[in-house]
Amino acid sequence: MTALAPVLDTLDRDLDASLDRLFALLRVKSISTDPAYAAECRKAAEWLVADLKTIGFDASVRDTAGHPMVVAHHDGPGADSPHVLFYGHYDVQPVDPLDLWDADPFAPEVKEVNGLRVISGRGSSDDKGQLMTFVEACRAWKKVHGSLPCRITLLFEGEEESGSPSLKPFLQANAGELKADFALVCDTGMWDASTPAITVGLRGLVGEEITVHAANRDLHSGVYGGAAANPIRILAKVLADIHDETGRVTIPGFYEGVEETPSQIKAAWDALGVTPEKFLGEVGLAIPSGEAGRSIPELLWARPTAEFNGISGGYEGDGFKTVIAASASAKVSFRLVHKQDPARIRAAFRAFVEQRIPADCSVSFKQHGGSPAIQLAYDSPLVTKAVGALSDEWPKPALVMAMGGSIPIVGDFQTMLGMESLLVGFALDDDRIHSPNEKYNLDSFHKGQRSWARILDAIAARR
Amino acid sequence: MTALAPVLDTLDRDLDASLDRLFALLRVKSISTDPAYAAECRKAAEWLVADLKTIGFDASVRDTAGHPMVVAHHDGPGADSPHVLFYGHYDVQPVDPLDLWDADPFAPEVKEVNGLRVISGRGSSDDKGQLMTFVEACRAWKKVHGSLPCRITLLFEGEEESGSPSLKPFLQANAGELKADFALVCDTGMWDASTPAITVGLRGLVGEEITVHAANRDLHSGVYGGAAANPIRILAKVLADIHDETGRVTIPGFYEGVEETPSQIKAAWDALGVTPEKFLGEVGLAIPSGEAGRSIPELLWARPTAEFNGISGGYEGDGFKTVIAASASAKVSFRLVHKQDPARIRAAFRAFVEQRIPADCSVSFKQHGGSPAIQLAYDSPLVTKAVGALSDEWPKPALVMAMGGSIPIVGDFQTMLGMESLLVGFALDDDRIHSPNEKYNLDSFHKGQRSWARILDAIAARR
Repeated sequence: MTALAPVLDTLDRDLDASLDRLFALLRVKSISTDPAYAAECRKAAEWLVADLKTIGFDASVRDTAGHPMVVAHHDGPGADSPHVLFYGHYDVQPVDPLDLWDADPFAPEVKEVNGLRVISGRGSSDDKGQLMTFVEACRAWKKVHGSLPCRITLLFEGEEESGSPSLKPFLQANAGELKADFALVCDTGMWDASTPAITVGLRGLVGEEITVHAANRDLHSGVYGGAAANPIRILAKVLADIHDETGRVTIPGFYEGVEETPSQIKAAWDALGVTPEKFLGEVGLAIPSGEAGRSIPELLWARPTAEFNGISGGYEGDGFKTVIAASASAKVSFRLVHKQDPARIRAAFRAFVEQRIPADCSVSFKQHGGSPAIQLAYDSPLVTKAVGALSDEWPKPALVMAMGGSIPIVGDFQTMLGMESLLVGFALDDDRIHSPNEKYNLDSFHKGQRSWARILDAIAARR
Repeated sequence: MTALAPVLDTLDRDLDASLDRLFALLRVKSISTDPAYAAECRKAAEWLVADLKTIGFDASVRDTAGHPMVVAHHDGPGADSPHVLFYGHYDVQPVDPLDLWDADPFAPEVKEVNGLRVISGRGSSDDKGQLMTFVEACRAWKKVHGSLPCRITLLFEGEEESGSPSLKPFLQANAGELKADFALVCDTGMWDASTPAITVGLRGLVGEEITVHAANRDLHSGVYGGAAANPIRILAKVLADIHDETGRVTIPGFYEGVEETPSQIKAAWDALGVTPEKFLGEVGLAIPSGEAGRSIPELLWARPTAEFNGISGGYEGDGFKTVIAASASAKVSFRLVHKQDPARIRAAFRAFVEQRIPADCSVSFKQHGGSPAIQLAYDSPLVTKAVGALSDEWPKPALVMAMGGSIPIVGDFQTMLGMESLLVGFALDDDRIHSPNEKYNLDSFHKGQRSWARILDAIAARR
């Protein structure tokens, strides 16, 4: 008999009790962005601390300049046990417009919807339901074995839905306490209701604003047109030069640090059937704009991009004005993957632009953030263990994927605590997070608990 | 003894009296854009009619929906005399800010400024002083000879400074009465104080607004970047393709109807010394942006352009937003020369754009006006006569030039009355038209009168 089996049995048996606990947490209106709910946020943190203490965690509410953090510690079975930091957030999005909800967002219940049992209510999926899957896994393990399989630190934030202003200072001030071997982050989703997913890559970002300056004032295009430099023309040429005919970015050195995706990962992605027609069809498009010959998942998860997020210059109002503008601007961003270096990309981009500015014109740059990509090796032991654990629990094997955008907490763990993160979550695309009628499938909640038990078991194993 | 010499003598002798008449007209506050001055506008029109009657013109104030027109007719010496339409405008710009004027804008006087005698006051140059040069030439001719050398129709508008809303309807309604062999328009300037100028070309204009449509909504650049089409990227590529490396417009057929400037005209333009450093230096630039190997005067006066007058798309505010816009727009204009056809240019541009739009995106166009260029043949008899007349009067030979922008009245004369226009005026760049302390050099007024006498004499001559 393994250590795991009785834990899974306990989770099955205690499902109703775990639902009661989740409902108690869901009833707390911990809307972080609205100061009117500050006391509710603290109440949610206090509820969590009290609950974690019943499991045996050394848990406390920790004040910040904003809403408090919850930090809890529990030893592992031995001094050399793996040390895991688990992250979730107890705050929720506002519930407006209230009249679009079928029921009180803070009166959770289990309903049957389209033949599936779902937990309704604000935060059921994002992120109270998710974080409680891990808490319940710990509770069951402790109940069965009197101990936990690893040393575990929990960090629950109360400002994730309002920009996490206190997170960085808190990590900084408590780095020694929070640093673990790696982090588990439960704030993402499954691929579909049958297929669990592990997110191992998050693209980084370099944001730049460029302004091309030509004449020292706006000019009349009749008087100066054909003679004076037009900054919109210069800007258009710069932007047009950034991609070649195959959609590849032409900035020298741009692809340094970009790795080819392993063929078995690519094959798994291809098997998802994410065709351009399907993915782009939802937004009225059909043709991938990125590098030719790459699948949609590869373009989104494993390839860097250059995107133009805004452009302005000259007369933009109704009608027409025969003006040659003094300047024109664009906001440009680069999504980075793997080992691309934000600082080098930024410098290479600036040099690329400067080479294209006529000698009598100039360009100024404004920096808008830069963060490297996050990438766990596809074949790292942690990923392998999680894949095995999740594949044992769910109907289909776990998908190892990446995300096109960034998740700040993961970058912060990397840069501030030197700690990699494994992102596993059980939300589904139709959970309506941030929207009226948010729900979390009962399966997500129940099999999510079982998944964490399996993952902890795999992590604890000395293989 | 020629017919001309005594007229010139009379103009010299009667200068003070002609100044008195101009001052009387300048004292009328005929600000057309401000309804408070409607009665003053009518007063100016009535003053002109009364004055023209003293010369023997059949003159009348003609009502419009706005400020009245002045129309006056005088027979020529014979039934087959050339028929000339002279155009000017009696309305003036507002005078704000009044505190920047050295004296009352409507109390004209002759002052000495930098060793030169100048006439001060609103309208002294634009356009009352200018139109009176022609009236005085007619008066002197009539006084000396009892007749005029040509059949002359005068058209004085009262809404030139406020968009000329009544002009087209008036031309339409009175086409038969106003149609002459050609028009003389006195609302332009000299090259410099020694060099008279004849404007024989005005560039035409085609305005287009294009909007590239991609996804059916704004997208998150993290989620869709690298897969979904970016309309700013498509737009930048379209705009960048419009010019080649030598500054030439690449739209097929764009240069159809563009003529090479005669070498002697080019030589005269080169002799002006309008270097890029000089012309562009004033606005902080140095390098011509147009077709390589062409001088500044040629680029401005004899070459067509494609200019981008405005561009917008995506996030244009402060900071950064990781958005891929649903659409992006640009305002594009083409300055046309010679026989370029606005409709063909517009169609060729639209085809050029459409070819560059990906199959899953679309483009929409909005038309913003189109007018052909105006071009008198450099070697037409009218131009040759005017060159001779002006070169006889002024220290330096007359410059045959063109203008980069359009003058609506000239296009209207062309399209509505089938009549070419010769643009001759005596304003100078430092006349501060539309600004405080407007002035008109006494030389411009006096030698302007003499110039018109010479031009009328040349036109009347059967050569």
